[in-house]
Amino acid sequence: MTNAYTTNLDRNPANYAPLTPLTFLKRAQEVFGHRPAYVYGTLSRSWGEVYERCIKFASALNKAGVGKNDTVAILAPNIPEMFEAQFAIAMVGAVVNPINIRLDANTIAYILDHGEARALVTDTRFSESVGAALGQLNRSPEELLVIDIIDQQTDEPDGTCLGSSDYEAFLAAGDNQFSWLMPEDEWDAISLNYTSGTTSDPKGVVVHHRGAHLIALGTIAAWPLTGSQPGQFPVHMYVVPLFHCNGWGHAWALAAVGGKSVLIRNINARNLYSAIAEHRVTHFGGAPIVLSMLINATDDERKDFDWPIKVYTAAAPPPPSVLHAFKSAGFDLTHVYGLTETYGHVVECIEQEEWLGMEPDALAQLNSRQGVRFAVTDDVMVADPETMQPVPADGQTLGEIMIRGNTVMKGYYRNKAATEDCFAGGWFHTGDLAVMHDDTYLQIKDRSKDIIISGGENISSVEIEGVLYKHPDVIAAAVVAQPDERWGEIPCAFIELREGANPSQESIVEFCRDHLARFKVPKTVLFQELPKTSTGKIQKFVLRDQVREN
Amino acid sequence: MTNAYTTNLDRNPANYAPLTPLTFLKRAQEVFGHRPAYVYGTLSRSWGEVYERCIKFASALNKAGVGKNDTVAILAPNIPEMFEAQFAIAMVGAVVNPINIRLDANTIAYILDHGEARALVTDTRFSESVGAALGQLNRSPEELLVIDIIDQQTDEPDGTCLGSSDYEAFLAAGDNQFSWLMPEDEWDAISLNYTSGTTSDPKGVVVHHRGAHLIALGTIAAWPLTGSQPGQFPVHMYVVPLFHCNGWGHAWALAAVGGKSVLIRNINARNLYSAIAEHRVTHFGGAPIVLSMLINATDDERKDFDWPIKVYTAAAPPPPSVLHAFKSAGFDLTHVYGLTETYGHVVECIEQEEWLGMEPDALAQLNSRQGVRFAVTDDVMVADPETMQPVPADGQTLGEIMIRGNTVMKGYYRNKAATEDCFAGGWFHTGDLAVMHDDTYLQIKDRSKDIIISGGENISSVEIEGVLYKHPDVIAAAVVAQPDERWGEIPCAFIELREGANPSQESIVEFCRDHLARFKVPKTVLFQELPKTSTGKIQKFVLRDQVREN
Repeated sequence: MTNAYTTNLDRNPANYAPLTPLTFLKRAQEVFGHRPAYVYGTLSRSWGEVYERCIKFASALNKAGVGKNDTVAILAPNIPEMFEAQFAIAMVGAVVNPINIRLDANTIAYILDHGEARALVTDTRFSESVGAALGQLNRSPEELLVIDIIDQQTDEPDGTCLGSSDYEAFLAAGDNQFSWLMPEDEWDAISLNYTSGTTSDPKGVVVHHRGAHLIALGTIAAWPLTGSQPGQFPVHMYVVPLFHCNGWGHAWALAAVGGKSVLIRNINARNLYSAIAEHRVTHFGGAPIVLSMLINATDDERKDFDWPIKVYTAAAPPPPSVLHAFKSAGFDLTHVYGLTETYGHVVECIEQEEWLGMEPDALAQLNSRQGVRFAVTDDVMVADPETMQPVPADGQTLGEIMIRGNTVMKGYYRNKAATEDCFAGGWFHTGDLAVMHDDTYLQIKDRSKDIIISGGENISSVEIEGVLYKHPDVIAAAVVAQPDERWGEIPCAFIELREGANPSQESIVEFCRDHLARFKVPKTVLFQELPKTSTGKIQKFVLRDQVREN
Repeated sequence: MTNAYTTNLDRNPANYAPLTPLTFLKRAQEVFGHRPAYVYGTLSRSWGEVYERCIKFASALNKAGVGKNDTVAILAPNIPEMFEAQFAIAMVGAVVNPINIRLDANTIAYILDHGEARALVTDTRFSESVGAALGQLNRSPEELLVIDIIDQQTDEPDGTCLGSSDYEAFLAAGDNQFSWLMPEDEWDAISLNYTSGTTSDPKGVVVHHRGAHLIALGTIAAWPLTGSQPGQFPVHMYVVPLFHCNGWGHAWALAAVGGKSVLIRNINARNLYSAIAEHRVTHFGGAPIVLSMLINATDDERKDFDWPIKVYTAAAPPPPSVLHAFKSAGFDLTHVYGLTETYGHVVECIEQEEWLGMEPDALAQLNSRQGVRFAVTDDVMVADPETMQPVPADGQTLGEIMIRGNTVMKGYYRNKAATEDCFAGGWFHTGDLAVMHDDTYLQIKDRSKDIIISGGENISSVEIEGVLYKHPDVIAAAVVAQPDERWGEIPCAFIELREGANPSQESIVEFCRDHLARFKVPKTVLFQELPKTSTGKIQKFVLRDQVREN
């Protein structure tokens, strides 16, 4: 039906522009051109310099024949080239495909083949696995443009150059007057991110400019990503790898507010505390393993700070005891939740006013929940995946977390079946199991596949881990299902001990009996270092294999 | 060109939703349902209550036959019904048309006719002008559904009921289970705002859901609209009239962050300071006249506060002396700029880090500039409207401010010619004249029509006013062009004096000579109260008429 509101009031160049984080970069160059975009070792570059480097890199890609909807892969840690790739590759209409540096050659080759990369930017320190991957491609290596990054800021032993030119030489051939491209449509792809593959083959998550713009604004609003005082700007320590979910989209958000990122090649307690102290860091995100690293640091590694530091943590649900210890150490911690498929965090544990002044343990319990949706996320529910009906908000009934809105991916690259599956019923199915509390805060109980079914009862491995983390000798814990003839499955606990601690297995079981129903108490307890992904997630599938082999 | 990025990766209900501030209200009900949305006198309502009232009002409109793309006008000050109207009317697909309470009957009738209002919600305290307007409509009064607001929180003498039912009774007939509507398309109109008509006929600015969503996020990011401490929430004093540019979209932004608004019927120094002290206000926006009101308050009216209060001020460029005095009084002031056509503020004077610790007068000079664009505003330039080329960034060359992006209106309602004119060349033409400084901050020099052309030289009335505001006896000043046989035009100054002050006209002229080039010094100085619009803008057209009649 047309009426006066739909007549002569159409879109035009003055009142409509595709949403994209590239507008943030363009504005950062104009408004914050003199301010630092990142520091890395002794290197510091302003938003003006980063903008010019991005244009030149985009121009060089253009000269090399890379254009609209071509995939450009990059394998590197959080170094300047990886930061710039979040913008530069989109500026020629191409799609950035960040690759985890710790992947084996087979998986790298799989991603380069499946993602149909036209170019690969790769850090020479990883030339062994990348070189092997290039030898395995389902096409001639000449069809892939390879550009090497030779990092001058590290004294790690260098690897081999695999490509035809290095990043700086390639970029230098670009034209800083290049007419770089805004997306024609905000639905255009901006990034392709392969999920870490704790399941079978990695799936390629395709995200778009619209969602990248919105997740950045949502993050600024929620965290909030602001300086501590008027006239001050946020200083962001980039701990979340940029190859993981575009580093939760923080590079885009930082461009929008003109903040500075501190880039760090190797994440360890000493490097993190040094960065905090030297740059007066105000914000960072990290997996719970990073929090543990910081609270378990030696006196020699630790540095004091007396200003507020806002921290987002996600991935595995952190036990309340870890949350409590971390807050006590002076970090203002917020628990968030999301997936690569949702551009990172879209659920956050907002602190309500009435929580202020609560007794610390009770507060830690509340804070350990995943919480409520971001303002830019249209809807989140915990529902029965069969009926798609929300579970009662009783804090008890398990359901699957379902998400919908503009910060949900376009779908999986070249995988129609998986895309249709995950969007069944008009919601994105996360595969995470949670309960809904009566205050509308959700709490994850487990990944679907991590639930232990013992004698017909569901046992949450997260609940048992929460108890284990309270034990003074335990630094990290993971519980998986162990096949059992009588019960079907029984809980098996893997524990990483604090240095010098030496508890007996029986004492751990006894400790669990004090805190858990009998059927939930682990029947087996094993002390060992836990296998972790590059983003700090404990790899339960490795432990599960180990249990099955025994 | 299709490839794998454009195949099987389409929009679906899981990954796409129209942008709208209604998602903020829905989330506020879920996440902040128990928190106050507004307080008004002795009345306080939570976001849960406001959401339910909005659904019932939308349902009642639906029962009355009001639906998609119908105009619903509302004439009221910042009272609960006006706040709710920013959401409720859109929830039935209709378009809210807020009307200035101080308009005369002729203009109200013009707006109701031109805007094709299907319903009018009107505060009985304005029944005299509204009643007269209803008698002048170009249609039978029965064709317009009239709903009266009977405000119980004021002891102002009541007026007459003009309609068939009052707001509470009308709302009570609505169904709280009503399936209210999200917009089908984010380009759908959400509001129709008639510009104040300092020129000829008022023009109806049509804005859409997409822009309303984005301006809210942009405001949260820029101000920033956050509580002072973690776990605290913003407390917003609603000074900007909601009938003016939807109160700069702040109701929408407050819903996104779960903040509280303090509604005030009558804006005066006593009421403002009382609200600040009682509710620990953290944010408000207001015209410079409101700043003057606060800094010139009597000791009896004034209340102390010891927490940060963030203030946005816009409209007429405030003289540096006012900015300086206001900051000294403890308000953290940011100068913003925008128009009804841009959903309010889209340009802000961001404080750069290097401004910290500057000498106060120099800082006030920097802060008096309008600044740089919001992160959600795609582009702003100061350009020659003939050639559309940006002026040099020399702080000298006058050009017109041009804006483009998603926070620019759809166009003018039923006014194709004006819409096409204002969007000429793919930019929105603001009609404001400015210079661009070398740090990319723009500064308004005048409205096109307020420039005084004397002997062929352009004189900025704002520059002269800036000097007059520095005079200790001057509370408000406005300079307009006075026709002159020899020079074409000469500056004529109107001055509102501080109570008890009694300077001579000659001494004012002498003061100007000390600070201005001779040709800019006002030839005539008149002492009188200045005519102002309801939003505190000085009505120069009244003064211009006065000058011409003399």
